[in-house]
Amino acid sequence: MRQAPNGFLAAMVDALGPDGVVTDSDVMAPHLVDWMRRYHGDAIAVLRPADTEDVVRAMRVCHRFGVAVVAQGGNTGLVGGSVGTPGSVVLSTSRLNHLGPVDEEASQITVGAGATLDAVHVTAAHAGLRFPVDLAARGSATIGGMVATNAGGLSVLRFGPMRAQIGGIEAVLADGSVISHLQGLIKDNTGYDLVGLLCGSEGTLAVITAVRLRLVPLDGPHLTLAVGVERLSAALTLLRNVRAAGVVVDSAELIRRRGVELVAAHVGKTPPTALLAPFTLLLAVVAGETVHDRLATALETLKPGELIDSLVAETEASARELWAWRERHTESISAHGIPVKLDVSLPISRLAEFEAGIDALVDRAHPGCDVHVFGHLGDGNLHVNVLGVDGSGGADWTRVEDTILRRVVELGGSISAEHGIGRMKAPWLHLNRSPAELSAMRAIKRALDPTAILNPGVILGVEAVEP
Amino acid sequence: MRQAPNGFLAAMVDALGPDGVVTDSDVMAPHLVDWMRRYHGDAIAVLRPADTEDVVRAMRVCHRFGVAVVAQGGNTGLVGGSVGTPGSVVLSTSRLNHLGPVDEEASQITVGAGATLDAVHVTAAHAGLRFPVDLAARGSATIGGMVATNAGGLSVLRFGPMRAQIGGIEAVLADGSVISHLQGLIKDNTGYDLVGLLCGSEGTLAVITAVRLRLVPLDGPHLTLAVGVERLSAALTLLRNVRAAGVVVDSAELIRRRGVELVAAHVGKTPPTALLAPFTLLLAVVAGETVHDRLATALETLKPGELIDSLVAETEASARELWAWRERHTESISAHGIPVKLDVSLPISRLAEFEAGIDALVDRAHPGCDVHVFGHLGDGNLHVNVLGVDGSGGADWTRVEDTILRRVVELGGSISAEHGIGRMKAPWLHLNRSPAELSAMRAIKRALDPTAILNPGVILGVEAVEP
Repeated sequence: MRQAPNGFLAAMVDALGPDGVVTDSDVMAPHLVDWMRRYHGDAIAVLRPADTEDVVRAMRVCHRFGVAVVAQGGNTGLVGGSVGTPGSVVLSTSRLNHLGPVDEEASQITVGAGATLDAVHVTAAHAGLRFPVDLAARGSATIGGMVATNAGGLSVLRFGPMRAQIGGIEAVLADGSVISHLQGLIKDNTGYDLVGLLCGSEGTLAVITAVRLRLVPLDGPHLTLAVGVERLSAALTLLRNVRAAGVVVDSAELIRRRGVELVAAHVGKTPPTALLAPFTLLLAVVAGETVHDRLATALETLKPGELIDSLVAETEASARELWAWRERHTESISAHGIPVKLDVSLPISRLAEFEAGIDALVDRAHPGCDVHVFGHLGDGNLHVNVLGVDGSGGADWTRVEDTILRRVVELGGSISAEHGIGRMKAPWLHLNRSPAELSAMRAIKRALDPTAILNPGVILGVEAVEP
Repeated sequence: MRQAPNGFLAAMVDALGPDGVVTDSDVMAPHLVDWMRRYHGDAIAVLRPADTEDVVRAMRVCHRFGVAVVAQGGNTGLVGGSVGTPGSVVLSTSRLNHLGPVDEEASQITVGAGATLDAVHVTAAHAGLRFPVDLAARGSATIGGMVATNAGGLSVLRFGPMRAQIGGIEAVLADGSVISHLQGLIKDNTGYDLVGLLCGSEGTLAVITAVRLRLVPLDGPHLTLAVGVERLSAALTLLRNVRAAGVVVDSAELIRRRGVELVAAHVGKTPPTALLAPFTLLLAVVAGETVHDRLATALETLKPGELIDSLVAETEASARELWAWRERHTESISAHGIPVKLDVSLPISRLAEFEAGIDALVDRAHPGCDVHVFGHLGDGNLHVNVLGVDGSGGADWTRVEDTILRRVVELGGSISAEHGIGRMKAPWLHLNRSPAELSAMRAIKRALDPTAILNPGVILGVEAVEP
């Protein structure tokens, strides 16, 4: 572990008070390893600022001493973007968790970066509104982290990713200056879109301290439908026809039999027949008088032999049970070890081609491994998890990652759909981004963080300056 | 007129061919004055690149000679952002007007920056799809210009502004390097959001050459409803109740009696009674079986005395006639002279307060002038046009602008909702943007355009470097 520069910790305690600076290694430990247990970080302290002014003071001290700052929300990221680096401090947003009142006239709410997604859901629902981004880590994932990574989740096909939900941001730049644009105006063309730029910048341009979020009306009840089909292309056709029939689709998830069987073994339950098809499309749609008929008509458009079985959840409890088969993929996979975990997107027109070839391709790169593919079908977004590759992050690991990512790019896809680049995918960013684009990104990074103290190594692989 | 640096024009003709470089003052003239006839520009040539490679060559020559480049689409902007400055070249995108085929699977299309909005509407409609941004200048406004200014228009409340419709951008940076990200993937978190940053940068960070646009399904028929009310607050209540009743509102425009009377005099027609109320809310909603009932119920929620009259357009022709009362505001105002023309947004909760006081406030700043207020009610976006102020851009003019813009900011609004900052509002940008924000924007500008040759003076008031 690298030592703090002389006087740094004292200056930080001066700035934040003793409660704001954690150096006890037991307390620090959970902040220095990611959720997957793949990335083990290091830091000279964990900072716990209580408000934006604390973040300003902390940034000024770090700027003065040249100490790197790794902002951390719920630490639920999957690309190694939020654990510390040697000689850095981890800035935890856990105390910046205030929840503003819901502004019902504007359908918006201002929350601290450390507010959890779950807390925002609950607060919005109390006002008869809904925050339309949702993902499995909702109990720990924070709004700040979700903005910093432009998180996606289950309802992107209907509402867009985090970037589409942001009415404004408050953030602290590397030199401690504060950018605050929290009015939440629907239209506001006053210069460069700093809010959109910070969204997805993964803590490399600023520390986000508060966010203005847009809320949408609560839907009436949703209806959950599981459709087991023979081929992925049938799932795509069905989704297209359901939407063309005017059914409002809230989420459209794809799972494969292999994944369902893994979950079944993990949770000790027998899946319904519709989920034991080669592919299952799970749909949550907005219920309504004519929805059953429209769904039935859309199902009839499938070619003979394509449909294996379908199942409508009639109660909320049975809907939750159906969704659990999708949501418990991640934990069921993790129970077998640390997977190679990739999150990619493809043009919808190449999705079936990608899926059809990926198992054999990965098997050639690393014989005997176990490939799990699932994800957000409507967005062309697949999660590819590979079990059975030894030596997390070693040469075998890298070969599997490289094989999958190059195949994605070959088919016109993106190496990161929603997880971000982090430390994990930085070596492959050049597959998706031209030298001109990388150079423009580096120029922006230098412009806003000239001494490179914000989350060094993330996205662009820029090294931290030595203190 | 400033002279071209020695050798510049010859180098440019070498780069673009003689057809690509216009120096004839008659041909240049329409490129050097804006639509309002307020901004009279100057340039040493108008460039007409035929493709992206031409733009690259042109930018390299300009970079080498230190000549400023003002990108120009349809020249329909309203803030003086697209006319040349002394010693600059105007780069017209008129020949970059290709229309790609509609990608029906992805519901997207790639078009050249010079394609007009109208051409995109027509092409999308042929494929049974719709490009959901619309505005009155559709016949001339180009997609490149609309992206560069993050244009808004009539259906922002339903679909969002241009930024929400962009699947990707191709653009040429100041040094001639090309950023090309046109895949149109729904999810793509690979580094900083350059696409979103260029959108709204008004030609100061890059020249946009092509855009990937998202299309939406064509609706069934729309129904147009005009509701005359006594007070602006009633129009807001009605709009809220119509949306809460589940009616899909495509546009919601506000006009005032004074504006209707001006249009009536200009076009020589008598308006229907509903349009002679103090305020008229014009709604386009998606038609459907229960829509008439829902609208009637929403109308019943108005307090007694609030509703003056309402009118449903039963045919497409009568709907067009109703909308013409709104769309012809701009030309009817212009027929009386060059107006002080502002485009502002306010929190919905302060909209009525702003409108109620603005006539008297402007009258105090400039007695006897004529204030017209109309705009996109659902977005809190009002256009404020003032006739009867002499001396375009002079001291009286500035006092009126200053009065209105300061009042907007006092109520928590934005000095530019959808027109952008351009040259016109640069002196007031500091009202909405803090020193830290302006400093961050300047740093980004320097990072991407270190010699400040891209549209100097626009947004940040940065001066062009001398050649």
